[in-house]
Amino acid sequence: MSRVAEPSIEADLANYAAVTHQAMSVYLPDTEPRQYLWDLVGEYPRRDGKAIRRALCLATAVAFGAELDEALPSAVALELLHNAFLVHDDIQDGSDVRRGGPALHVAHGTPLALNAGDALAARANAVFLRAARGQRRHVAAALLEGWERMIDQTIEGQARDLGWQRDNTVDVSTADYLGMCGQKTAWYTTIQPLAIGALVGSGDAGRERETFRFAWLLGLLFQIANDLDGIRPDAGKSEIEEGKRTILVIHLLGALSGPDRDEAVRIMRLPRDQRRGPEVEWVRGKMETEGSVEHARDCVSELAVAARREADAVFLELPRSEARDLLRQSTDYVLEQHGLP
Amino acid sequence: MSRVAEPSIEADLANYAAVTHQAMSVYLPDTEPRQYLWDLVGEYPRRDGKAIRRALCLATAVAFGAELDEALPSAVALELLHNAFLVHDDIQDGSDVRRGGPALHVAHGTPLALNAGDALAARANAVFLRAARGQRRHVAAALLEGWERMIDQTIEGQARDLGWQRDNTVDVSTADYLGMCGQKTAWYTTIQPLAIGALVGSGDAGRERETFRFAWLLGLLFQIANDLDGIRPDAGKSEIEEGKRTILVIHLLGALSGPDRDEAVRIMRLPRDQRRGPEVEWVRGKMETEGSVEHARDCVSELAVAARREADAVFLELPRSEARDLLRQSTDYVLEQHGLP
Repeated sequence: MSRVAEPSIEADLANYAAVTHQAMSVYLPDTEPRQYLWDLVGEYPRRDGKAIRRALCLATAVAFGAELDEALPSAVALELLHNAFLVHDDIQDGSDVRRGGPALHVAHGTPLALNAGDALAARANAVFLRAARGQRRHVAAALLEGWERMIDQTIEGQARDLGWQRDNTVDVSTADYLGMCGQKTAWYTTIQPLAIGALVGSGDAGRERETFRFAWLLGLLFQIANDLDGIRPDAGKSEIEEGKRTILVIHLLGALSGPDRDEAVRIMRLPRDQRRGPEVEWVRGKMETEGSVEHARDCVSELAVAARREADAVFLELPRSEARDLLRQSTDYVLEQHGLP
Repeated sequence: MSRVAEPSIEADLANYAAVTHQAMSVYLPDTEPRQYLWDLVGEYPRRDGKAIRRALCLATAVAFGAELDEALPSAVALELLHNAFLVHDDIQDGSDVRRGGPALHVAHGTPLALNAGDALAARANAVFLRAARGQRRHVAAALLEGWERMIDQTIEGQARDLGWQRDNTVDVSTADYLGMCGQKTAWYTTIQPLAIGALVGSGDAGRERETFRFAWLLGLLFQIANDLDGIRPDAGKSEIEEGKRTILVIHLLGALSGPDRDEAVRIMRLPRDQRRGPEVEWVRGKMETEGSVEHARDCVSELAVAARREADAVFLELPRSEARDLLRQSTDYVLEQHGLP
């Protein structure tokens, strides 16, 4: 059973996105070398994106009692770090397109793009450090430790994902997969943005983990919703083509047997440039007929039920506010954004 | 006029290198995913290198009054960051070999190597942050601001270097070049290692810049000495082959005229895989006959004279110690290491 997000949520989200977007430009140097560095650093942030991280961070901070401005530098730092990951991710995946424009390494070559990704990460760290040092001692310590943990978790998750892809691993379990997503996606998309919001909002280092379970469920839901997006016929470069291990691929390899499984394994093990139209279509078809798509949708539904329950448990304790309502409805918002029931 | 470094310097340097090398392993997690991440992260640090950064940092801290252990985490952080830069640098330059082994992206593929470089940078930041937070307030603030500035400077210098290479820029001036080297090489090789040592050693934020001029001169000398190494016939992949703008290339383009200059420009503008043996030999020969090698050697000599003078001005004020002697002789040590008079 799905609930439809209220119109005011959209307005709040748009506001959160806009203020962070504006603040972000303040934190990027307007200096030389522009042509080889700082212009590149600004490209992905200027194109803007889904803005889920900054919205979750800001809404949580406000719901826990802060003024929006108090959490703004942290939200900016999260967005800059996200953009750093995207730049390196696009190089790692050999992606051509990002947010409707050419990938940074396609536009400027890999060496300068890689370097601009390093600069984005350095800026993110600098902005976050300054934000944390403005907080009281214990909160600052929790913020900085959480920031480090998030980066390590993201990089470890990324390593697993890239490693499975490089080695064409076909025996990844669902548990392995969810563990990887928790690290690669959830930690910096939901877990830490909410933890930062709770810390900055409450000013109480003891409340850092209150949002953990909700954030983890929402993060996994977000990743699986993206996996489902990735097999749509209208998706740019499909996840199947990229050879990503997704929950759909894992289910499919478990569901197939005999020659069909051999064929699926053969396709997943093909070099990327040989996994084209007919192979992708064959896999996509099997994902439908073998129930992999349904399985992924079921996972999303179960995660949504659990996430809504956790959201109520955590957020109904807080004073009534629009920010609190936004967080309670964020699960449904993510479903809507991905056209899921 | 050159002076020969005393044998005790070698012993001190070996000691500094060894204690940092041992400490470094403590700061790298012994955890999963090993095969896809943490084993890769340890590869360059295990191979070890010239160790100039850690030696300068530790010697300065001791010369300014600290126990060696107090500066050890900072020295480790510098080495980890240096290794992070090397991993990304090898991807950017398409280098095949590093410290006698395969480059990380050659051994493990670019996606996992790039990710391991990110992990090295994250570890470096985490180790340095912890080290800085153990210091008194003003010293900690100066350390953290200096660390950020160093990373920005390095990335900006790297951007210029890579940008000139990508665009095959042939009108780089000597001033441009020295500015780039100051950013790309000197800042994290000499300037900040010495600044960190002075801060940690003295416990006085006001003394951060005392070593700046000496460190800057030594850093430029170090880079030009490396430029000279890069044109030796026995150098692995020569700087000429890589298409790097070095002080030798810049001098040569200024010294040549007519068809010879056209030929030099043509060669520098060739795609990298077409700049091979005969072209490299032609450029190398012209660098000898046109005085580019002599010019670079003259620059090194002038920098050495100035660096020794600055070293005396800064370090003779400090109490007598082996560490102080090492710093005063570091210019000659760098010359010796590169077989320069």
